[in-house]
Amino acid sequence: MSKQEQIQVALGQRKADLVLKNARVIDVFTGEIRLAEVAIQGGRIAAVGCGYCGAQEADLQGRYLAPGFVNAHCHVESSMVTPPVYCMEELRWGVTTLITDPHEITNVLGGDGVRYMLAASQGLPVNYYVQLPSCVPATPFEHAGAVLTAEKMAEFLEEPRVLGLGEMMNYPGVVGCDEQVLAKLRLFEGRVIDGHAPAISGAGLQAYVGAGICTDHESTSFAEAREKLRAGMAVLVREGSASKNLRELLSGVIQERLDTRRLAFCTDDKHLADIRREGTVRHCLRLAVDLGMPPVTAIQLATINAAQIFGLRGIGAVAPGYRADLVVLDDLEQFQVAAVYKDGICEVQSGAFCIARAFAELGSAAQSVHIAPLALDAFALPPRETYPVIRLVPGQIVTQRVDLTKAQVQEGLAEGSLRKIAVIERHHATGNIGVGLLAGYGLTHGAVATTVAHDSHNLIVVGDNDADLYAAVNELVRVQGGYTLVKDGEVLGSLPLPVAGLMSNQPPEQFLPALEQMLALAHRMGVAQDIDPFITLSFLALPVIPELRLTDMGMFDVTSFQFVS
Amino acid sequence: MSKQEQIQVALGQRKADLVLKNARVIDVFTGEIRLAEVAIQGGRIAAVGCGYCGAQEADLQGRYLAPGFVNAHCHVESSMVTPPVYCMEELRWGVTTLITDPHEITNVLGGDGVRYMLAASQGLPVNYYVQLPSCVPATPFEHAGAVLTAEKMAEFLEEPRVLGLGEMMNYPGVVGCDEQVLAKLRLFEGRVIDGHAPAISGAGLQAYVGAGICTDHESTSFAEAREKLRAGMAVLVREGSASKNLRELLSGVIQERLDTRRLAFCTDDKHLADIRREGTVRHCLRLAVDLGMPPVTAIQLATINAAQIFGLRGIGAVAPGYRADLVVLDDLEQFQVAAVYKDGICEVQSGAFCIARAFAELGSAAQSVHIAPLALDAFALPPRETYPVIRLVPGQIVTQRVDLTKAQVQEGLAEGSLRKIAVIERHHATGNIGVGLLAGYGLTHGAVATTVAHDSHNLIVVGDNDADLYAAVNELVRVQGGYTLVKDGEVLGSLPLPVAGLMSNQPPEQFLPALEQMLALAHRMGVAQDIDPFITLSFLALPVIPELRLTDMGMFDVTSFQFVS
Repeated sequence: MSKQEQIQVALGQRKADLVLKNARVIDVFTGEIRLAEVAIQGGRIAAVGCGYCGAQEADLQGRYLAPGFVNAHCHVESSMVTPPVYCMEELRWGVTTLITDPHEITNVLGGDGVRYMLAASQGLPVNYYVQLPSCVPATPFEHAGAVLTAEKMAEFLEEPRVLGLGEMMNYPGVVGCDEQVLAKLRLFEGRVIDGHAPAISGAGLQAYVGAGICTDHESTSFAEAREKLRAGMAVLVREGSASKNLRELLSGVIQERLDTRRLAFCTDDKHLADIRREGTVRHCLRLAVDLGMPPVTAIQLATINAAQIFGLRGIGAVAPGYRADLVVLDDLEQFQVAAVYKDGICEVQSGAFCIARAFAELGSAAQSVHIAPLALDAFALPPRETYPVIRLVPGQIVTQRVDLTKAQVQEGLAEGSLRKIAVIERHHATGNIGVGLLAGYGLTHGAVATTVAHDSHNLIVVGDNDADLYAAVNELVRVQGGYTLVKDGEVLGSLPLPVAGLMSNQPPEQFLPALEQMLALAHRMGVAQDIDPFITLSFLALPVIPELRLTDMGMFDVTSFQFVS
Repeated sequence: MSKQEQIQVALGQRKADLVLKNARVIDVFTGEIRLAEVAIQGGRIAAVGCGYCGAQEADLQGRYLAPGFVNAHCHVESSMVTPPVYCMEELRWGVTTLITDPHEITNVLGGDGVRYMLAASQGLPVNYYVQLPSCVPATPFEHAGAVLTAEKMAEFLEEPRVLGLGEMMNYPGVVGCDEQVLAKLRLFEGRVIDGHAPAISGAGLQAYVGAGICTDHESTSFAEAREKLRAGMAVLVREGSASKNLRELLSGVIQERLDTRRLAFCTDDKHLADIRREGTVRHCLRLAVDLGMPPVTAIQLATINAAQIFGLRGIGAVAPGYRADLVVLDDLEQFQVAAVYKDGICEVQSGAFCIARAFAELGSAAQSVHIAPLALDAFALPPRETYPVIRLVPGQIVTQRVDLTKAQVQEGLAEGSLRKIAVIERHHATGNIGVGLLAGYGLTHGAVATTVAHDSHNLIVVGDNDADLYAAVNELVRVQGGYTLVKDGEVLGSLPLPVAGLMSNQPPEQFLPALEQMLALAHRMGVAQDIDPFITLSFLALPVIPELRLTDMGMFDVTSFQFVS
């Protein structure tokens, strides 16, 4: 019926639901910009032409009309808010399609995490697609909440919003033809399989791509990106909160006049406050044009390129039959968003939402913090000759390993240059706990704890005395995950992240100030000013980044790739 | 297993089946050309790099290496040879992928025609894809051999080589929301639906595209092609034997610097002799570069663009995981083909086939000419006041209608300016026969007949006396279809086309001289020199081209769109 109505609207036999008049349409097919009217019926574009009448009409007064933007790879959990909250912030800046990889929540909840994200994003005014996390757990050196095998993945194959396989981080498993890894690749044969191949090149890259991996978002140099393009990969140019690769990559592309059709934009991880301030893809567009990329080319990266890379029909262009996901732009330099239409409905006007929406219920994702009763000496250091210490490097995610004698450790703890750190398995109450030492964090007195701890998201806690360590752990059990700050047994502040211990379901107006307050409080407790008190902790349990990490299984030396014995 | 071997080859852990050394690789992703080696394993490209060893190695001596070409839309039957013969001629010139529309044979045999083409093309060294004919019969004003309904089409949905729906010629049916037409469009929703929209523009084009139609190959002006690109269609630039649109379309594209990603090459209908002489896509490449298109851009049209338009994974690029369908080119001006590899096997070297292949059996496609016994007065003109006459226009496919008195007709038949023409239903022996008059054909004495008669492919015969008309019909029943020439009851020559009355299964070395001989003989019998004796006849039964046509149901006036009463 709806197709018939669209045909009738196109022919002028029927009034459209909505006509956008006086639009400078960005044509991602021909590369042109031209003045036209867009007639919309049943949420789809019925026609781009002139002389159409609509039940509603909007005069765009010569503003630019682009297809809704696509963020080609993002981890929603990294924003620490649930899909509804995250999506609205993306939508505000013109993103109408998200390719998400729920890697974090799946490490906590397994397939139920994927189901939660699908359910929580259902019905939102964003096309919310999922790439199934390929590496849960990320390594064999930690205990995550679940193991997502190929068999369990198969349950999601018929889900229409599951497109393909998420970033395959297990490069050695791929090129070593690990049977479990190949089973996952086979399961998604013919679909888009995202890659994760930082610095992989030469023969290794050829093997990795030949195994069926289609995209990569880890290039940090132009040469790396070019090699991946040549190998047939789509390169997702990343501009997140921490990893900012756009300038380097696109400068080279522009200078070398490379074909751009296999490039798209993504954020990977971007904080909510950063999105709120500048958007995601909109920020990429601004940077790209500033580098000298023609605006329509940049918009191709933001729209049709991503849609073609992920095989999304009816998305990414202003043409009949396409979804009426549209962004009205004031200009093609700052890409100021004047309005956003999703399925033909005006959702955003001048930065404000037109429609009030209720946020989703927590559902099955709550109650994810399960810890075995802690022994009285749980945080005691084991008797050793020398102790390996994780030393933070300001402004970097890598750490250094320092080995200290028992006497040096006692002195460091006493004078405050060392702090105790612990990672406690929090999914299945196994009682697993890794205890170690941390240098360079600061913290005068008390404890800091979080359940956001990549990639297994166990509970990580740091402090100067065992009593506060206990108290911080108990507080996170009580609030079922989040951030907490404890001093002398008193909780100074908590930011609950009750969804899998990773996400808040508060609106940003409440969440962002609460987060700011926690950061300020932590710094007042003596955490070094050049360190993010919680994000720094959240990477200390990731046993793939040099040199020394702590998991629930103990101290792990990444250089020698084994536990410290 | 084969994927593991490819990975091992890429890593240099295993010898490749074949390594092409010293190749100037055409990179359709970045637009570059670079010197490299291509390692091939199990018919797939394992790696593009350097330092590879192979069980076989070939030194390309710096020649260009492009992905195998794609002919994005062709009717194999128009070559009058079976798929094996046709494919080998395409392959010789570098085409390794064909998107075919078996519209002609399906008009004769229905679904069995599709099955025949699929079977006859099975195992050939060409990726042979089928778009299911959407309009069988083409019009309600004639009787074809079959009616292909949406229900019957559904039988082919699971066939891996059936990609989508063939050219939707019923524009009025689409925009008029004819239920049968919409049922076909719905059946192929989400797949590629080819269009056929000559001169359709404005609101009508928007409606037609919005209905779900993805491609068009009928543009004859740049403005028409540009409007279709803007509307979101992929434009298949046609360069066939009769319709040559490339120069007009690509001149505009180059001059206006349009984005080229939604353009590909096709032939629609190209005669075997023309293919043999100059190729199909290779000829397009030569013309495009001659117009000033950069060679790599032209090769993108010939390869990755077509693959992306039709959603063909693993086709159209020289990169790991892609099929090792490759063309070695001496140059990027004439596009002289030095060698062709299909699935990593060298099939063509310096224009000669490396592997001898047997041609397919006729199978179920033989015995397609079924005619009811003709009455003694079958060719008698009905008694009328005035007679409508089809007048040929030299060099054009359109005809003119002339109305003559009974006396003028008798005089014309006597002096030889008029000839009798008949279209006889030949599929189901219904006895249907349309008889009319033809001017401008020539033919001194005797009869010319063919079973190739678009689109229903009934038997069409023209002659100066009823006895020879009878004899010609009988001869085509005897040989079960083809071309024949008869004089004084004697068959002067026949070219059997036993496959559906449309195709020969002879090799080109026998078929082409036989065809030449028939043409020469027809001209010696007096057929006008500026007329192709058989192809001209084959379009006289097509009731969609102005002004006057003859079907098995009678004289049809295309201008008034009704039968002459």
